[in-house]
Amino acid sequence: MKRVYLYDSTLRDGMQAEGISFSVEDKIKIAKKLDALGIDYIEAGNPGSNPKDLEFFSRIGDIKLENAKICAFGSTHRVGLSPQEDANVVSLLRANTPVVAIFGKAWDLHVADILKTDLDTNLTLIYNTVAFFKQKGKEVVFDAEHFFDGYKANAAYSRKCVQTAVKAGADWVVLCDTNGGTFPGDIGRITAEMVSGFDVKIGIHCHNDTGMAVANSVFAVKSGAVQVQGTINGIGERCGNANLCTIIPNLQLKLGYECLDREKMTSLTAVARYISEIANISHNERQPYVGASAFAHKGGMHVDGVLKNPKTFEHISPEMVGNVRRMLVSEMSGRSNLIAAIKNVDPSLDKTSAETQRIIDKLKNLEYIGYQFEGAESSMELLIRKELGKYAPFFALNHFKVIVSEPSGEEYSSSALIKIHVNDEEDIAAAEGDGPVNALDRALRKALERFYPQLSEVRLTDYKVRVLNGQKATASTVRVLIESTDGTNSWSTVGVSSDIIEASWRALVDSVEYKLLMDGIR
Amino acid sequence: MKRVYLYDSTLRDGMQAEGISFSVEDKIKIAKKLDALGIDYIEAGNPGSNPKDLEFFSRIGDIKLENAKICAFGSTHRVGLSPQEDANVVSLLRANTPVVAIFGKAWDLHVADILKTDLDTNLTLIYNTVAFFKQKGKEVVFDAEHFFDGYKANAAYSRKCVQTAVKAGADWVVLCDTNGGTFPGDIGRITAEMVSGFDVKIGIHCHNDTGMAVANSVFAVKSGAVQVQGTINGIGERCGNANLCTIIPNLQLKLGYECLDREKMTSLTAVARYISEIANISHNERQPYVGASAFAHKGGMHVDGVLKNPKTFEHISPEMVGNVRRMLVSEMSGRSNLIAAIKNVDPSLDKTSAETQRIIDKLKNLEYIGYQFEGAESSMELLIRKELGKYAPFFALNHFKVIVSEPSGEEYSSSALIKIHVNDEEDIAAAEGDGPVNALDRALRKALERFYPQLSEVRLTDYKVRVLNGQKATASTVRVLIESTDGTNSWSTVGVSSDIIEASWRALVDSVEYKLLMDGIR
Repeated sequence: MKRVYLYDSTLRDGMQAEGISFSVEDKIKIAKKLDALGIDYIEAGNPGSNPKDLEFFSRIGDIKLENAKICAFGSTHRVGLSPQEDANVVSLLRANTPVVAIFGKAWDLHVADILKTDLDTNLTLIYNTVAFFKQKGKEVVFDAEHFFDGYKANAAYSRKCVQTAVKAGADWVVLCDTNGGTFPGDIGRITAEMVSGFDVKIGIHCHNDTGMAVANSVFAVKSGAVQVQGTINGIGERCGNANLCTIIPNLQLKLGYECLDREKMTSLTAVARYISEIANISHNERQPYVGASAFAHKGGMHVDGVLKNPKTFEHISPEMVGNVRRMLVSEMSGRSNLIAAIKNVDPSLDKTSAETQRIIDKLKNLEYIGYQFEGAESSMELLIRKELGKYAPFFALNHFKVIVSEPSGEEYSSSALIKIHVNDEEDIAAAEGDGPVNALDRALRKALERFYPQLSEVRLTDYKVRVLNGQKATASTVRVLIESTDGTNSWSTVGVSSDIIEASWRALVDSVEYKLLMDGIR
Repeated sequence: MKRVYLYDSTLRDGMQAEGISFSVEDKIKIAKKLDALGIDYIEAGNPGSNPKDLEFFSRIGDIKLENAKICAFGSTHRVGLSPQEDANVVSLLRANTPVVAIFGKAWDLHVADILKTDLDTNLTLIYNTVAFFKQKGKEVVFDAEHFFDGYKANAAYSRKCVQTAVKAGADWVVLCDTNGGTFPGDIGRITAEMVSGFDVKIGIHCHNDTGMAVANSVFAVKSGAVQVQGTINGIGERCGNANLCTIIPNLQLKLGYECLDREKMTSLTAVARYISEIANISHNERQPYVGASAFAHKGGMHVDGVLKNPKTFEHISPEMVGNVRRMLVSEMSGRSNLIAAIKNVDPSLDKTSAETQRIIDKLKNLEYIGYQFEGAESSMELLIRKELGKYAPFFALNHFKVIVSEPSGEEYSSSALIKIHVNDEEDIAAAEGDGPVNALDRALRKALERFYPQLSEVRLTDYKVRVLNGQKATASTVRVLIESTDGTNSWSTVGVSSDIIEASWRALVDSVEYKLLMDGIR
């Protein structure tokens, strides 16, 4: 089986997608997840154009990765300077990564119109920059920008650009379809010519402007490319980059190339979903392999066919990529992760138990109205305990009222009052806050601390809001995810409502209840 | 130039997508729009499996179409019945369309496992059904279901199925990759064999389960297929059908085939957007050619390149498909995108002007506190106008107050009162809503409509919330993005604050101001 190396650019080219922006913290989380999946190279930023990337590179340097090499990305040095004098080259070096990717012009039009220099000078830029980083001991990836457009316009010159990078010691030459306008036939033919013409490992980097990024990447590999660049979920500039979540199973499951460990492949759907969550974008549920609709059967004939023999309407088994089959018009089958969570609460139950079926039904109703328990296991555990009668409430709400005023005249625009009771005792408390949810959060904990002093250790560490079916605009359904910690443990909870205060309230209550439950059990 | 016929199945296979459902009224609107675009065939329903489709066929029969032929879809007749005795065949005839599409099994596995009959009987079903509709004077399209999987398993039998349909008089034979698992190389090779082997017009029908539906369709056409089936925006069962919005420009603009009138091509983006609107799904903005991001440039190098020469980073001109170029403003890009937006308001300014510098400083401060103007061009335009003194306010806020109660006791948990003044007049209004933002939105527009009746046309079509630096949890900074429409135009605005009500308020005010500004300018 031929090995193909995976080069992920979610953190660099992916961040060039409209609406995407990652904090340093987000980038660290994503890099760890990509490493755990088994990605070979993680292109994590362009320190020259985005100075805060240097903070990321400094922090990731202290983290031990299992599989992946971290790579910093930047251009050939500027005309009229030496590499040492170019601030971008210097910051690329300061990123202190084992691998650097240098992109250089490989289309004569770009040399004339963008760099505004002559063709020979561009070759010098390529040579000097690649040689500079090789002298510094780096593994160097040379990205031949616009290679295919360049090759079609002036093949001799595009070849010279590659030849120059190879002579300067580049470890990899990556052929880029930067504008995404090339078709698979041309990609395959030109890649084959480059593979046979040069003694260097060839990679492929495609964009999706004609809907061909996946086909183009696969054709390049079939023509001898041994590195595929892309992003998780295909996010990237304009229409996006080649989608690694499609390419990896295409190459490994359909064509027999070796990309990931077999058991890692089954985490692909979870990783794709996690990264959509961090990016705060709706996961594209229609995407191949890793979307919720990818193995969802709706047409009556299709459902009937799959029940008779799944092979009749599925080109692979969903389990191979960690996805699940769904019958949109019939009963959904038991879900292994849910069964595991139920067994965790009561080991005597299994998937055939009546209780299990009742919990599945309850969960299906909640998912239908917008709940999602993947990032909110604590809410799921509470739900299971409540359904199994293994939960006694710690408090009850009488009522709350939140008032927001503008202009506020005070330090805070929002104030909340809340009345609760615990057993037979009542308490009422009020608090101000930065916005209505903050005021409500403070008032709730103030009211409860008399009864449960340990709540003073709890603080919320993350708060996420996702608007579902945004078409109803400010009356849309809202999902709130809250992450809490008491210094020792952390847990996450979820609430859904068409009212953001209500959704936040549900997630807050789950957070408090989970803390008290855990303290009682420990 | 070789003519390729377009066969749209948005109303049939598109409706098999998860979450899609069209009323008869919707279907009529979409059919008219597809006709105006220049689609050749509109596959509009399966009267056998969806009886309410008969109402559609009866109504569409009374409407004069310019280009398109309407087609009804159904299967070969049932084993043990004659065509006349099969209720599905009868309802297909009752649809009274000039064209019928008959799908039949072309994979031996399906004959055995799904039909549970022998291979010869299936040939009889194909022959009888096609011949029946030919005798009734119909143009008959034979869809050879699972043709490619069948061909790989038992080519001789799959060919026999096609041969039978041709012998019975089928006008078209469409090769279907029903499971979407076939790759372009196989599609091209097998289609070529069928084109040379049979004296019938060949079509292609692909699904996107390996991300190859577009490439597969193009390969089939290059191998001699003269009809392409697909859907607008690629909606369909599981991962969807081949996306006609990508295939049409690929064939016509990139490969020189003839599909649509040249001036019709420029309405492609509007048609795609219209159909997303009718289907009540978020338009996929990242899709090739017709998404809002398709020609949106974010990376600083890209923006700089496009300003020097659009060809450097665009494989076609956006105007050819009725789309527009956009320069996104973000921390990654240089100032080029911003300069373009400033010049749009005042062409006399350039990057050296003092005003430009002042706007850049202002923007940097706003981005520092969490604003992001990509995706909110209208807020940016307002900001530029305000800085350049090209804006006079339409109203001012005196104060508002929002109250949220739980339990509510009423239909709505939230109510808002607002007092504004316009010139010397004041007005105060109150409204209830589903959550505090919805109540505030309603109250604001209620207060303003007396002064600006055109605001009654405005409705919000999307509302997004992004929590920045979530670590401060419920006191985190929040960014709200709002998309509005007045039926003709749509625009998007942004607001940032640590208080979600305040952030929403800012975006709401920008939305209203932008509408009034545009009305004044037009």
